[in-house]
Amino acid sequence: MDRANSRDRALRDRAEAVIPGGMYGHQSTALLPEDYPQFFQRGEGAHIWDADGRRYLDLMCAYGPNLFGYANPDIDAAFVRQLGLGDTLTGPTALMVELAETLTAMVTHAEWAIFCKNGTDATSMALSISRAHTKRRVVVRAKGAYHGAAAWCTPRPAGVIDSDRAHQVFCDYNDVASLEAAVAEAGDDLACVFAAPFRHDVFVDQAEPDPAYAHRARQLCDERGALLVVDDVRAGFRLARDCSWTRLGVQPDLSSWGKCIANGHALSALLGSDKARAAAASVYSTGSFWYQAAPMAAALATLRLIRETDYLERITALGERLRAGLDERARAAGFGFRQTGPATLPLFLFDDDPDLRKGFCFASAMLDRGVYVHPWHNMFMCAAMTEADIEAALDAAEGAFAELKRRGGALPPVEKLAFLTTGAR
Amino acid sequence: MDRANSRDRALRDRAEAVIPGGMYGHQSTALLPEDYPQFFQRGEGAHIWDADGRRYLDLMCAYGPNLFGYANPDIDAAFVRQLGLGDTLTGPTALMVELAETLTAMVTHAEWAIFCKNGTDATSMALSISRAHTKRRVVVRAKGAYHGAAAWCTPRPAGVIDSDRAHQVFCDYNDVASLEAAVAEAGDDLACVFAAPFRHDVFVDQAEPDPAYAHRARQLCDERGALLVVDDVRAGFRLARDCSWTRLGVQPDLSSWGKCIANGHALSALLGSDKARAAAASVYSTGSFWYQAAPMAAALATLRLIRETDYLERITALGERLRAGLDERARAAGFGFRQTGPATLPLFLFDDDPDLRKGFCFASAMLDRGVYVHPWHNMFMCAAMTEADIEAALDAAEGAFAELKRRGGALPPVEKLAFLTTGAR
Repeated sequence: MDRANSRDRALRDRAEAVIPGGMYGHQSTALLPEDYPQFFQRGEGAHIWDADGRRYLDLMCAYGPNLFGYANPDIDAAFVRQLGLGDTLTGPTALMVELAETLTAMVTHAEWAIFCKNGTDATSMALSISRAHTKRRVVVRAKGAYHGAAAWCTPRPAGVIDSDRAHQVFCDYNDVASLEAAVAEAGDDLACVFAAPFRHDVFVDQAEPDPAYAHRARQLCDERGALLVVDDVRAGFRLARDCSWTRLGVQPDLSSWGKCIANGHALSALLGSDKARAAAASVYSTGSFWYQAAPMAAALATLRLIRETDYLERITALGERLRAGLDERARAAGFGFRQTGPATLPLFLFDDDPDLRKGFCFASAMLDRGVYVHPWHNMFMCAAMTEADIEAALDAAEGAFAELKRRGGALPPVEKLAFLTTGAR
Repeated sequence: MDRANSRDRALRDRAEAVIPGGMYGHQSTALLPEDYPQFFQRGEGAHIWDADGRRYLDLMCAYGPNLFGYANPDIDAAFVRQLGLGDTLTGPTALMVELAETLTAMVTHAEWAIFCKNGTDATSMALSISRAHTKRRVVVRAKGAYHGAAAWCTPRPAGVIDSDRAHQVFCDYNDVASLEAAVAEAGDDLACVFAAPFRHDVFVDQAEPDPAYAHRARQLCDERGALLVVDDVRAGFRLARDCSWTRLGVQPDLSSWGKCIANGHALSALLGSDKARAAAASVYSTGSFWYQAAPMAAALATLRLIRETDYLERITALGERLRAGLDERARAAGFGFRQTGPATLPLFLFDDDPDLRKGFCFASAMLDRGVYVHPWHNMFMCAAMTEADIEAALDAAEGAFAELKRRGGALPPVEKLAFLTTGAR
């Protein structure tokens, strides 16, 4: 298509004038291939349409929120029904109690719930509640792990000052000795240990959690009277119908949730155990829209699908089929191609690709063939995907690997990702 | 009614088990009279129905979000239409650009917009952007002013540590000398001055902004190269169809918005001038639902009503009618009764009422008569209110003043507000 005259180009030009940098945050295409669309117009099931009307199988699922399909009729009907009755009111509705009861019944460690709007709200509350509970200050967390975009945790330094990062000690994910050293450094000021359910940092291979690491984190928190926080915002309900570390036999004291818990409606949550209840009640946490009833109705419908359908087995099987098929095609084309992390949150990276020029070329070739993939952030499977969708993605991949092979050593460097090789950003 | 067997009571008992303290945040009734309902089931226009089906004229308007009536048909139709097309997707829609263009056209100082979910998101971004812009740290803000519930600004100390409050200097609202002293204390480390558009602190009389204070704040920021932030989350579009300090001839560099900008749908915004654009682009700000299209469609419909109807003149006239009528009835009943702040954000407090026992008795008597008022937080007028509603509120007030008079000196102390007189909370 003629990109210079595209509707996406026109929207970018207008956005440049009224949105800082043209777009902000994780949905900015600034670090994606040039041909990636910035603006979309529609979503249905597993597909999205960009502003120019091109349709893609969407392996990003809105960066997680889409678990049961865009515009899911059951979930959105529950939302719209409640919207007609009352949404943001002068107080909460009975749905808030029902939703707290539902989540605490589903998530083993949870005995109470607080509802909020951003994943960052939940992780920031977890930190404050841990400090209130322990009357201590230090959080131990893994280098490179994303826990939100507030000043205490945002991955970029702009606007962050010294005191925002005080009382934080970093360790290496899955490295027991490094975790022990960080806890030792925190000493008698340890408030909590944060953990992603698996390593899902950007730009690098994902890693399943080492059970020894998870158990040691639990043990160290118990020994020190600190709280263990599992940040399930990104991965929640794509690994288990419970907190993700339940699979390892480790229960946290607090877990943060968001993204898909209302299938794209604005809702996040912090769940906690009895131990942290008094502290949770003491911290003043609130927001204008935290009591909204319609997203809670959508969440109840979503959680019903989570409990009553085989969505998890299906997205796992689809993710495994995608992985096996990609692996086969990459090998046949002669590429070293690494697929890491859980099958329901796929990430692939090429061998010998420090500035991701292979990854960018492959992603563009997939986009051209109607499949939206991400070259350096994990993707997400959703229950609206079908075997035919996966076959279509694999056909696209076959073409994309062939195109990449054809271009051989002639790929241009990816200037915008130069920081990956120079270390400067 | 039989409160012990009420549905509200049953919900409270269930909530006690699964929600910390039974309820959290600004919509908890913990500091309201005992007969205030905690749970609601419906809202329409200017009215809400509690969980037991009792209907009230709602002077709280969901603590602000309700500007054009609960379940406003035009606004909610725009929301639902967009929901069917696409809401939370893998990227934003054209509506985001249109909304940024609309707001920057309406708000004089604004040349760009960032959209978020909580008012606290907008105020926290304002702080980070000010620090990024100036490469300095200190925020000057008024004692007692509410700017959100994050650790740096939450009104309660639980969970907050020393470093969360570092680099903050406090002044007294409307006190030029105190503002000058705070700025002097910040010295060459001043990043920004935060200002509420008027003093709307809880438990005390509101105060209109002294123009000398506003102009001096602007001048000091200009002299020091710091940014001026007006926090219009609570009052925005109830004082002007522009930033609230425009009425004083003072333009901030940044303004935070939320609450009513999408008439109750989850949306907040930070607006800024060109001066702060590069800093805004440099700070990493994001959230899972910040690109949602449906609340943006609702905001566009809301802003159209703001521009094209006489809502502001109507809610001002209704607020003035309410104020005059209450004043008259209070005087007739012999009560010293202070009504402060703008007529569209009313607050009333009784003279000689240190623990608010008169206020609580009056509020309960109003509730009994079908009018939901707040005894210590400012209220909100909305465009769905009619003159008949105001007359009904005044009739209720006549009865409530009479009841208060009948009970005379026999009012019980308000134990839960003892901190107002002892200072300990």
